[in-house]
Amino acid sequence: MWRVMETPLNCAEEQQPPPAFPASWSTVTPQESPADRNDKGNAVGFVLVHAGAGYHSESKAKEYKHVCKRACQRAVDRLKAGALAVDAVTAALVELEDSPFTNAGMGSNLNLSGEIECDASIMDGKSLRYGAVGAVSGINNPVLVANRLLSEAQKGKLSAGRIPPCFLVGRGAHDWAVNHGIPPCPSEKMFSLSAYKRNKHKMELAEKVDTGFNHHSKKRRQASETVSSSLLHPTSAPGQSHQPCHLHPILEGNVAAAVSSGGLAMKHPGRVGQAAHHGCGCWAENTSTLNPYSTAVSTSGCGEHLIRTMLARECSSAMQCEDAHQALLEAMQNKFISSPFLASEDCVLGGVIVLRCCRCSDAQPSPDIQAILVEFLWSHTTESMCVGYMSAQDGKAKTHISRLPPGAVAGQSLAIEGGVCRLVNTPTTVD
Amino acid sequence: MWRVMETPLNCAEEQQPPPAFPASWSTVTPQESPADRNDKGNAVGFVLVHAGAGYHSESKAKEYKHVCKRACQRAVDRLKAGALAVDAVTAALVELEDSPFTNAGMGSNLNLSGEIECDASIMDGKSLRYGAVGAVSGINNPVLVANRLLSEAQKGKLSAGRIPPCFLVGRGAHDWAVNHGIPPCPSEKMFSLSAYKRNKHKMELAEKVDTGFNHHSKKRRQASETVSSSLLHPTSAPGQSHQPCHLHPILEGNVAAAVSSGGLAMKHPGRVGQAAHHGCGCWAENTSTLNPYSTAVSTSGCGEHLIRTMLARECSSAMQCEDAHQALLEAMQNKFISSPFLASEDCVLGGVIVLRCCRCSDAQPSPDIQAILVEFLWSHTTESMCVGYMSAQDGKAKTHISRLPPGAVAGQSLAIEGGVCRLVNTPTTVD
Repeated sequence: MWRVMETPLNCAEEQQPPPAFPASWSTVTPQESPADRNDKGNAVGFVLVHAGAGYHSESKAKEYKHVCKRACQRAVDRLKAGALAVDAVTAALVELEDSPFTNAGMGSNLNLSGEIECDASIMDGKSLRYGAVGAVSGINNPVLVANRLLSEAQKGKLSAGRIPPCFLVGRGAHDWAVNHGIPPCPSEKMFSLSAYKRNKHKMELAEKVDTGFNHHSKKRRQASETVSSSLLHPTSAPGQSHQPCHLHPILEGNVAAAVSSGGLAMKHPGRVGQAAHHGCGCWAENTSTLNPYSTAVSTSGCGEHLIRTMLARECSSAMQCEDAHQALLEAMQNKFISSPFLASEDCVLGGVIVLRCCRCSDAQPSPDIQAILVEFLWSHTTESMCVGYMSAQDGKAKTHISRLPPGAVAGQSLAIEGGVCRLVNTPTTVD
Repeated sequence: MWRVMETPLNCAEEQQPPPAFPASWSTVTPQESPADRNDKGNAVGFVLVHAGAGYHSESKAKEYKHVCKRACQRAVDRLKAGALAVDAVTAALVELEDSPFTNAGMGSNLNLSGEIECDASIMDGKSLRYGAVGAVSGINNPVLVANRLLSEAQKGKLSAGRIPPCFLVGRGAHDWAVNHGIPPCPSEKMFSLSAYKRNKHKMELAEKVDTGFNHHSKKRRQASETVSSSLLHPTSAPGQSHQPCHLHPILEGNVAAAVSSGGLAMKHPGRVGQAAHHGCGCWAENTSTLNPYSTAVSTSGCGEHLIRTMLARECSSAMQCEDAHQALLEAMQNKFISSPFLASEDCVLGGVIVLRCCRCSDAQPSPDIQAILVEFLWSHTTESMCVGYMSAQDGKAKTHISRLPPGAVAGQSLAIEGGVCRLVNTPTTVD
């Protein structure tokens, strides 16, 4: 069986004393399952999800945490049933997409035309393949399309030697999905008229202010700050928040990452955000001769900022340094907040969850017993970020809403937290 | 005036003796113009373009070279008229998009539905901003949309604090373009029925072969190799070749890069290739405290291979090493042909043009006289690549069709060539 132990990681909010780490792992006996087990027959895996970086109201904290919990459970169930890492992350994302509390799938923001257009992508750390859809309408679970693009591409070339696509958008993505057995969903079933009217009204009010000042840049910026905060600081109403979701199961060192998003509220039709962009929305890379750690990363926040900084890949690269906390802190500071790619931005909004693992180098009790060290972290410049995590040996998921310290300015400072989980493989013959 | 001198770079095809470098720069006196000049009033700039990596038949070599020549001239004309680097690259791309001999704009490949869907992107090395369109139909010059997205984003936030998009796709991209004054073009005007029928027939034949062998993977791969070579080795017929184009003017150290492509022939509708993908189709980054060189890169070839390797950005990073030729050779070998991201591919098809520059460190004749060293290179694993280059002080562009050495296997070995151009600023008062 696997014993799971957890100790707090060196956690600190920027220029603040380290917060108490909010969770501790219990020791559990996993159910046995036919596949995706270690050599001793036990299911192995760890999942980390988020329900967006933005603003999570206290009044709806329970709902945000609950969907993260269900997503973790869904992934763990799939791992126990023998699923691959990419399929387990997909299962968790389906749960998040199906929730009206996340800005993905059913609960997605509406664009300027009052339609839902979703982005999603997935990456497999083993094959290093990626699949993505952008601005796709009429599909409840865009992550299923991204997953299917990835698996179809692994089958090799198409007829006439054509290269299988890794990235499809718009109507073409929708049609490809339906032709591959993914059920369509009438747009009106995904539509939240009240959320649309609320956003539209805010925008029209702001446009009147803009026109009154003849689009003077200073006034435009002031208007921006006022209203962007409401776009990125959602109430609990479905369809208002920007909450991409992702998760990273580890399966004997294999990692995968995925992300799904409805994009920014009132975006232009056809706008594609980081969730569909390779290297920007998610990244997964197994350990190799070059990389001592397997890493999986997923981002959330302002898509344009995350695209220009390629934050997912940057964080993954950074995590090859020894000190995980310091590596992520420096990556968020130097590759995001102070990135030369965002030099003109005075407010840089994003969040990231990171998972990395390696075989423990310390002495093992016996050659049959191996330990994997899992480090999981999240960091954000937005006011809050909701996360959940669970090991396949755990009874239930832990969840947490991380918030910037009091007085910190969203978009200019960051919070960073995380934990360490040591998985020890004890041969079943020992018990 | 500027004196332009050129010496061959250390050029070599892999495991082959260095080829003779095909061009030498003449010394010219530039026309004076009101803007984009150095302190002494002379226009400054250098442009490098390609008309695709794939196969360029000898019988149509003249046409391929001619369009590259016109593209260079167009960029230089714009530089002399005071344009920014991003606008000069855009002008060159418009020329390439308007040609029926390039797989971009008017001459684009058709997708499975017989439609043209284009990708294009642009990056400004100074602001590090990027703009892109994917799978856009009914627009003759997709690069104009990418350019406009970039310039609109530089104006700041939209009404209601909305973040301006950097990447639009499909119908939304088309409508945004038209609303911003970019003329639409009826699809039938961009349609080449003969090219479509030819591709479709090939695919149907190949599908019959596939079915006959019950989709056995080995047979599928054989079919792929046969037919993919014709997709990537175009005849001169419009719409058959895969020829993204890009160019990199330098304007007093400012670089920009752009790329435009009709994508792979018979692609699935909605498929987006590297030309719209940040970091994959083009990259431009001015010199900074971290980077001794300004670099601009653009790619061509199989979009999926170029996306998964993020080749444009990888080459740009690599070019910060001292030896430009060795840096590009290693980048193409390690980050493309032998990339772990393409480990499952037995044939890796792509090409890249690279331009870098820095202030010369050697002694200058006087404090008023400065020299800029421009190094320009191209490398490809495809059978051929057509390039053109020109300085603003040059009378006309040089063009070249680079080919793999005899016996080299496309997709497994590479060609690399280039040159050096030393621009010396002589104050006009000296003459």
